[in-house]
Amino acid sequence: MDPANWRTYLITQESISSGRSTLEIVEDAIAGGIDVVQLREKETEARWRYELGLELREVTAEAGVDLIVNDRVDVARAIDADGVHVGQSDLPVSVARDILGPDTIVGCSASTVAEAREAEAEGADYLGVGSIYGTTSKAVPEEESGVGPERVAEITDSVAIPVVGIGGITAENAGPVVAAGAAGVAVISEITTAEDPRDATEALRSAVETTKTVGGEGRSE
Amino acid sequence: MDPANWRTYLITQESISSGRSTLEIVEDAIAGGIDVVQLREKETEARWRYELGLELREVTAEAGVDLIVNDRVDVARAIDADGVHVGQSDLPVSVARDILGPDTIVGCSASTVAEAREAEAEGADYLGVGSIYGTTSKAVPEEESGVGPERVAEITDSVAIPVVGIGGITAENAGPVVAAGAAGVAVISEITTAEDPRDATEALRSAVETTKTVGGEGRSE
Repeated sequence: MDPANWRTYLITQESISSGRSTLEIVEDAIAGGIDVVQLREKETEARWRYELGLELREVTAEAGVDLIVNDRVDVARAIDADGVHVGQSDLPVSVARDILGPDTIVGCSASTVAEAREAEAEGADYLGVGSIYGTTSKAVPEEESGVGPERVAEITDSVAIPVVGIGGITAENAGPVVAAGAAGVAVISEITTAEDPRDATEALRSAVETTKTVGGEGRSE
Repeated sequence: MDPANWRTYLITQESISSGRSTLEIVEDAIAGGIDVVQLREKETEARWRYELGLELREVTAEAGVDLIVNDRVDVARAIDADGVHVGQSDLPVSVARDILGPDTIVGCSASTVAEAREAEAEGADYLGVGSIYGTTSKAVPEEESGVGPERVAEITDSVAIPVVGIGGITAENAGPVVAAGAAGVAVISEITTAEDPRDATEALRSAVETTKTVGGEGRSE
């Protein structure tokens, strides 16, 4: 799927899933209509991530859901993922592109217009912009307050590639992120810690689509 | 260089280098006659390792010294390293081989004969066997006593690929590891924490070569 059409994006983190496996959470999210899953699980060994990745590849491929791997370009290639997502401390976008080729999605995290422009220039296919509302999933105290939906507007005004908002996003606060120009929203906690991850995914999807419908294709200002 | 000809193998870890950069330590080790350098630096971000890797690639290439990357197959490929070294919790040897092709060295850690045979069957070019004498560089309390040089003998009797001993090895205790059949020895602390890493490398090399000369080409029994 073209990242411009991603509405809901799940980033996996088994450590906060209340004892449920990432595979279970992903299957529930697929049932709820998720568009893309990012295998993250940052604190785990590569072998474990690779084996989980092979499982996720099966269920996502069957459902027509995109699978992206965080940070590890080698794991992305090994499990035949649809793409990789790199942060500012990971391998450069250009290196990921060189290893994975032109047909694989390469996404990049950006929290400023400068980072967004650089990632686009290096060949990124989409941007993860945040942290929008701050986050409890990552230890980034200096960003606890979040860059806000305004940053999405600044960045979508500055680059042509699609933007996914990330950081503290819920069904309740997703609207302004989409209204600011994001193609979709990425979440960890909202789905992973939910009592019913399927319902949580449906609610998030509905919030995004409602705003898209109200605001038309572009940004509502 | 064929791993069978490696005598001394430095694994980098800037965190124990007393404020000296890994590049400095590697340059000193090269001056002391090191055969191969493994970029490890396990607790660091991929971007940092990639950038350091580009620097190490320059100095090792100029000196004709092999450069191996620990764990990250993508970083190995990105910096055009001579090979990658994977542990039992990293990507499988076969996956590394698939990404890097037949001409790149793929090494694997093995502490038992079973692991050694499996790695060889998967296509590993050499084995890192240990921890020989236990180690202070890694947090592996259950192996603190070490598998001993005897394990090197068992493994070299069981596989055809060359073995490098690792774990607590110094110029003083390297002899028995080589006498047991190891092609060479790998160290972190012995060179990285040395007051003079060049002298430490020379002493280690001398210890290995003396045992090789005394014992002939094969194992002295």
